[in-house]
Amino acid sequence: MAGNSYPEFIEFEKECQNAQFAAGILAWDQETKMPQGGAMERANQMATMAKWFHDYYTSDRMRVYLEELRRPDVFDGLGPEEQTNVRETGWQYDREVAIPGSLVKEIAKHTSMSLETWKDARSKDDFSLFAPSLEKMIDLKVQVAEHIGYEDNIYDALIDEYEPGTRTKDVEVVFADLRERLVPIVKKILDSDVHPDEGILAQPWPLEKQKEFGIMVVTDIGYDWNRGRLDEAAHPFTSGAIDDVRITTRYNENDIRPALFANIHEAGHAMYQQGLNPEHYATPMGDAIGLGFHESQSRMWENLVGRSMPFWRHYYPKLQATFPGQVGNVPIEDFYAAANLVKPSLIRVEADEVTYNMHILIRFEVELAMMNGKVDVEEIPALWNEKYKSYLGIDVPSDADGCMQDIHWSMGIQGYFPTYTFGNLISVQLWNTMIKDIPDVWDQIEAGRFEPLLGWLNEKVHRPGRMYRTPDMLKHLTGEPMNADHWIGYIKEKFGPIYGVQL
Amino acid sequence: MAGNSYPEFIEFEKECQNAQFAAGILAWDQETKMPQGGAMERANQMATMAKWFHDYYTSDRMRVYLEELRRPDVFDGLGPEEQTNVRETGWQYDREVAIPGSLVKEIAKHTSMSLETWKDARSKDDFSLFAPSLEKMIDLKVQVAEHIGYEDNIYDALIDEYEPGTRTKDVEVVFADLRERLVPIVKKILDSDVHPDEGILAQPWPLEKQKEFGIMVVTDIGYDWNRGRLDEAAHPFTSGAIDDVRITTRYNENDIRPALFANIHEAGHAMYQQGLNPEHYATPMGDAIGLGFHESQSRMWENLVGRSMPFWRHYYPKLQATFPGQVGNVPIEDFYAAANLVKPSLIRVEADEVTYNMHILIRFEVELAMMNGKVDVEEIPALWNEKYKSYLGIDVPSDADGCMQDIHWSMGIQGYFPTYTFGNLISVQLWNTMIKDIPDVWDQIEAGRFEPLLGWLNEKVHRPGRMYRTPDMLKHLTGEPMNADHWIGYIKEKFGPIYGVQL
Repeated sequence: MAGNSYPEFIEFEKECQNAQFAAGILAWDQETKMPQGGAMERANQMATMAKWFHDYYTSDRMRVYLEELRRPDVFDGLGPEEQTNVRETGWQYDREVAIPGSLVKEIAKHTSMSLETWKDARSKDDFSLFAPSLEKMIDLKVQVAEHIGYEDNIYDALIDEYEPGTRTKDVEVVFADLRERLVPIVKKILDSDVHPDEGILAQPWPLEKQKEFGIMVVTDIGYDWNRGRLDEAAHPFTSGAIDDVRITTRYNENDIRPALFANIHEAGHAMYQQGLNPEHYATPMGDAIGLGFHESQSRMWENLVGRSMPFWRHYYPKLQATFPGQVGNVPIEDFYAAANLVKPSLIRVEADEVTYNMHILIRFEVELAMMNGKVDVEEIPALWNEKYKSYLGIDVPSDADGCMQDIHWSMGIQGYFPTYTFGNLISVQLWNTMIKDIPDVWDQIEAGRFEPLLGWLNEKVHRPGRMYRTPDMLKHLTGEPMNADHWIGYIKEKFGPIYGVQL
Repeated sequence: MAGNSYPEFIEFEKECQNAQFAAGILAWDQETKMPQGGAMERANQMATMAKWFHDYYTSDRMRVYLEELRRPDVFDGLGPEEQTNVRETGWQYDREVAIPGSLVKEIAKHTSMSLETWKDARSKDDFSLFAPSLEKMIDLKVQVAEHIGYEDNIYDALIDEYEPGTRTKDVEVVFADLRERLVPIVKKILDSDVHPDEGILAQPWPLEKQKEFGIMVVTDIGYDWNRGRLDEAAHPFTSGAIDDVRITTRYNENDIRPALFANIHEAGHAMYQQGLNPEHYATPMGDAIGLGFHESQSRMWENLVGRSMPFWRHYYPKLQATFPGQVGNVPIEDFYAAANLVKPSLIRVEADEVTYNMHILIRFEVELAMMNGKVDVEEIPALWNEKYKSYLGIDVPSDADGCMQDIHWSMGIQGYFPTYTFGNLISVQLWNTMIKDIPDVWDQIEAGRFEPLLGWLNEKVHRPGRMYRTPDMLKHLTGEPMNADHWIGYIKEKFGPIYGVQL
């Protein structure tokens, strides 16, 4: 039984979230369509949108609804979906209300301009152009964190936005465990005598054919074009709610990997959104649980499925037919090994599965230093480069491909990076549960049938929306808290045979 | 000297207009990029945006500002630009405050859905699919008009939105005058022995070359790509503020006219927006004066310039080089005559200059009947077809190309159509003033130099924003009120020689 004000409350929540989705379209547009000269106008528009959302969300109206609906006697009388909507709206309300509207507006405006500054600085490979903008962003995010409050570490207040309840110290524990177990694995792989031929992938691939092939794959796996579209963006991302979920990719004429795997990755995100319950559009029950789970979907499709042998047993003949000059005479085993090449590298989004988490570790450490005032902005490139050398043995040739390679800091989403690693861990943890329900999933994939897997994810992961929070959801689905065991096991099992070593 | 609250007032006005521009981007997206499945979500987003704008614009905050700033002692102390911003914001406030927020939200939501219904009904050529949606829209617009109030005719309250202060009876006078003088002109032209060969234009033109040529032309005349972009849309339109002004066109593989002239037409609108003073972005001083003036810019570039002999003396060799198979052997005189073919036709946006206003007359009459409850919705197609037969001698073969050809009624912008004819009249009235300042403008155009003309328009028409209202602006610039003399004179002078008759 709903409390008296629940219907009005949920109507108001929807109204507010609609404005957020509208802002999402503007953000998508800025990354894909907006003419360069429009940056300042867009910054002003985004600032107004953010401020108005903030004004409404923190209004007396919302406060009064929540005061009533959070009262135990009322809350207990709500159904589970209603309770979810009250709990999660309340959580967002508490965060919003802690931050002054003027700061929200300033951040939105600065973000829009900062994005343009980052693009410009990156294209000119000149960190000094970006530095003042980043410095201001850090200052603004520090203010946000101080307003929200935290126990141990200022970073807690930031990561909480993406994975509610996560603490920096917990992240440090997971990362330490992962690093300890991963370093010897990487070493064994790199020391092995097997050297997959990267040249199979890094060769000229006609763009039009790349597009065609990518579209075929995302269509097959279940991306719904009636509720989506594909564009190019410097930094691929997915945007949208349930019935308008857009993916982006970037093409490299000399390497099929960036576009193909970004396509699958973003389709993984998008199918999560498209799989949400449209009845709950614009409410927490119709929203994704958190970024770790979101990333688990993209990484599952990209890596567990998209870089698997069964997947390529299905697609390789098509790939050979589409690109006879490139792979017509290449045995599938060589292609598979190349697609799973482990090679410490510069660019996170193009990193292999095994070393990927090291990229996240570096970002996490730099962000921690940045947000705790332990590194000056101008020292960030040096710190970045030093860590790439020490953790991955990589010399960073330019800041454009170094500490300016990612869009995140220019967008002010410090605290986001760790969720990528959570996504990797969760993806395998979920997979190992799913496979008990669908024991023949690999046969299905090899036959090009992806509905059983997508159907399982729809039912178990997507449709429940934010009914559970990440830890509870994991417990509920897999019976275990988040841990690295599954992922480490998967890496060993997959890469041992490829590299002919016992991991 | 500004009143005390002026700086805060103008900051707030900008905030509100930013939200309107944001909604404009969403509307552009809906027409050009949005996947079909997203219509309902978009409708919800647009409804929230409209409601929030309405809430803010009609808030106590705005009321208090305006009460102070409109007080004669305060208003008189403001500078002319400030007075303009107060006067025009006050005018919009008065309109908004008259309409309940719930109605605003309902209209926005219905508009978004109605657009989709119209598209669907049009593609299926089934008016009955659109009728309920149109009926509801009429009902909503009647409610709006009743809230705003009017003296003589409910239509007054609608047309006032697009040309403040215009009365239905004044429109009727102008249209009657125009019709009386135009009918004999059309008759003489159609009775003449000259029959330009339409086949020169209505033949296959490769799309890619059409695009290329159109882009060259709009670039030459002064459209700024750094602050714009070109996309395809079923119904070409221009969207945006000053630094992000987007144009759209539609291509017809078998006729070069639709895309080429839509390109120039929309660029004319866009150059008005791009020519506004960016210092006044998001205030009336940085906004276009009204739709009549807006249309005068698009029609001037499309018709007075784009269908003139000097223009084609410059471009025809380029056209011949681009399309040797189509016009390589066609004399310029034949091409020019074909581009100015007078032929009563079905589709307004493709109508020739001479008969164009008859299309507007028909719409005006149908709208008047529609809004005054003198025609039932299901009778609209018959009424439309009857008028096309009687005024233009045209049999309407389908509602898709009949009363469903225009987007306007589905968007709820009843009252807009007359401004097209105003635009035609104003375009020539302005031209006849401009040519006194730039006597060699035709030589300039023939030499491909469009800056003198654009520069004049920028200075005289664009930069002043809404400093004057349409009647005052016309008086100020041309010394005369709006009248049909200039336009009729222009038509006679241009088409007499083409058709070898004394008009």
